[in-house]
Amino acid sequence: MEYQISERLSALKPSAIREIFKATTDPSIIPFAAGNPAPESFPVDMIRTFTREILEENPVVALQYGITEGYMPLRTLLRERMQNNYGCVRPADDLIVVSGAQQGAELAAKALCDEGDTVLCEDPSFIGVLNAFRSLRIRLKGIPLQSDGIDVERLEQALRTEERVRLLYIIPNFQNPTGITTSMEKRRAVYALARKYNIMVLEDNPYGELRFAGDDLPHIKSMDEDGRVIYLGTFSKILSAGMRVGYALGPSEVLQKMVVAKQGEDVHTAMLPQMIAERFLKWDGFDAHLQSIRALYRQKCGRMLDGIRHNFDPRIAYTTPQGGLFLWCTLPEKNDMLAYCKTALGKGVAVVPGTAFLADTQGESRSFRLNFSTPSEEQIKKGLELLGEIPIQ
Amino acid sequence: MEYQISERLSALKPSAIREIFKATTDPSIIPFAAGNPAPESFPVDMIRTFTREILEENPVVALQYGITEGYMPLRTLLRERMQNNYGCVRPADDLIVVSGAQQGAELAAKALCDEGDTVLCEDPSFIGVLNAFRSLRIRLKGIPLQSDGIDVERLEQALRTEERVRLLYIIPNFQNPTGITTSMEKRRAVYALARKYNIMVLEDNPYGELRFAGDDLPHIKSMDEDGRVIYLGTFSKILSAGMRVGYALGPSEVLQKMVVAKQGEDVHTAMLPQMIAERFLKWDGFDAHLQSIRALYRQKCGRMLDGIRHNFDPRIAYTTPQGGLFLWCTLPEKNDMLAYCKTALGKGVAVVPGTAFLADTQGESRSFRLNFSTPSEEQIKKGLELLGEIPIQ
Repeated sequence: MEYQISERLSALKPSAIREIFKATTDPSIIPFAAGNPAPESFPVDMIRTFTREILEENPVVALQYGITEGYMPLRTLLRERMQNNYGCVRPADDLIVVSGAQQGAELAAKALCDEGDTVLCEDPSFIGVLNAFRSLRIRLKGIPLQSDGIDVERLEQALRTEERVRLLYIIPNFQNPTGITTSMEKRRAVYALARKYNIMVLEDNPYGELRFAGDDLPHIKSMDEDGRVIYLGTFSKILSAGMRVGYALGPSEVLQKMVVAKQGEDVHTAMLPQMIAERFLKWDGFDAHLQSIRALYRQKCGRMLDGIRHNFDPRIAYTTPQGGLFLWCTLPEKNDMLAYCKTALGKGVAVVPGTAFLADTQGESRSFRLNFSTPSEEQIKKGLELLGEIPIQ
Repeated sequence: MEYQISERLSALKPSAIREIFKATTDPSIIPFAAGNPAPESFPVDMIRTFTREILEENPVVALQYGITEGYMPLRTLLRERMQNNYGCVRPADDLIVVSGAQQGAELAAKALCDEGDTVLCEDPSFIGVLNAFRSLRIRLKGIPLQSDGIDVERLEQALRTEERVRLLYIIPNFQNPTGITTSMEKRRAVYALARKYNIMVLEDNPYGELRFAGDDLPHIKSMDEDGRVIYLGTFSKILSAGMRVGYALGPSEVLQKMVVAKQGEDVHTAMLPQMIAERFLKWDGFDAHLQSIRALYRQKCGRMLDGIRHNFDPRIAYTTPQGGLFLWCTLPEKNDMLAYCKTALGKGVAVVPGTAFLADTQGESRSFRLNFSTPSEEQIKKGLELLGEIPIQ
């Protein structure tokens, strides 16, 4: 029979890069296209211990329905941490657990935006969240990124001229896909503009704990005097991506609506992963574990930068991230980026074409994303040698 | 500041029964309002064993990102089971894992319905899914339930007269909230009408494995010649509700769109719960475990029916379920059901007012839902004695 698919999902076409993503499951392909944390970063031994303890001490809580807002001991710890470490909690704020920061972003947009409303985002930005917004029939308006973060002049211009702007979606630390970090000055400017034009800010910080160079900068949420910032955090990059545990911190009036929406999506986040996350936060090896992940990614990112310097045509521009999982390369003018990515795949190296991350799906890009967390150091070395063989115009 | 909440969620008001639900967390209240599986039904020892084995043998798969469609060994087993045990799989069907059947229902409606489209449902029906449909701005049209299932004449009338009908949502086995089972004749009639009027059917079967009286009836999905039925199953009532693992079986063209939508919601269902579910299906104690849950609920339901017969005014009507978790009581005319529920709560017994389950949130009801899986036998006995004290007009 013929199926009539909803307009919201008909519009979401399978992307041209799907084939390249699929190639990343082929173990013979060097996985620079991935976005996975390094498997060696998972604290496997402790997860075994936590899980055994939970199922010995508290099996019924782990296996029974929980409340939609999340496992209370985890929420309490996270709230304390966001306040004590980052000064981010306002009295009127609430903190809820979500099934990954991805769900947090989708729920925030669901609560704040109607079909046809506009969300501003960095351009390029994280494809998963952009697609979630698209599935809500939200209009995306991308604001160019500069080396120190979003272009604030273009941001203000958009705020002045675009219609029905409700929200700015921003990843201030080691942004996906570029690895760029928003400067202190721009964090302040972004908040001031949000205030001036009365929009909400969705601050997505999946990589913030993964800083391996430079100094931490305050979250935009820490400047939030009005309650216009919703902050998203996750355990995906520091504990386990497969557990799907993230959290949202923001004005409780909005979070209550996100809870109603979450109830309709999955009732609550799986309990056992939430309880593992709670023990992980209380673990006395927590800080040392974070340090070890940072050291691992510092090393891998360094190897990737070495390989770029050694093998790439000097006209290929690249970012030098201070943390996270990704860096971003841009070919000189006159080069066909999609052809480059296809040639790379033919050589056994998967990279993600920059077009995948654009707010405008018809937009053009000469950039591609490289991931350094998933490949081994050997793969990083070999992969960059192979990429270096591709002729540049 | 003043928040502007989206129209889709503004419309979803906190329900009047929220307070009664909250009361169910008070351990001194007898929990007839709950919908939880009995804690003693969880196979805790085996879950400990499965979890230990998974984290010993396959920790990286359990902790790393997975694909949105779900853990392949689990999907394969479920597909075989749906075909071998129930004859439900068409060659063009796919089976995906979802974060509880709740998510399956939400994704199906998201893929098939635009804002303003109409979904038909049994009236009363499961509030969680009705609210998910409402959050998509779908119009609900309830079709009255009879003792053998949906009123097929009223169903055909609605199919003839309602506009933009896309989907029928139906729970054929031990329906929530009524405990009613759709007869064989009506299952055939429902499928024939769906075919005649060219709509899709969403068959939600969370309780189907919990039959403790009578004989199994074929799923509507097993009659699906055209690929117009999406079937939803879950591990929530047989393994663990807190793990949030369900599945959807249906035409792959529609399921592919559900996968795109799921990617925007939670990327994928948590891996460890999926892997536990897979081992659970392969466990040689699986059938015996299902038998033990059925025996437990047969016993509890029997005690509840005994208590009703012994304590209730004979003018209170009630259903006699052949499985599941719930039964449904209806007060005689002239009684105020909400007053009855409030009096019950004052006596320390929480029941759910029937109005909570209506397609029309302004509708009236003289019914209330009783759950027999959560309370102990002692609580069942005591609770019905207390309810029996409430005067009936």
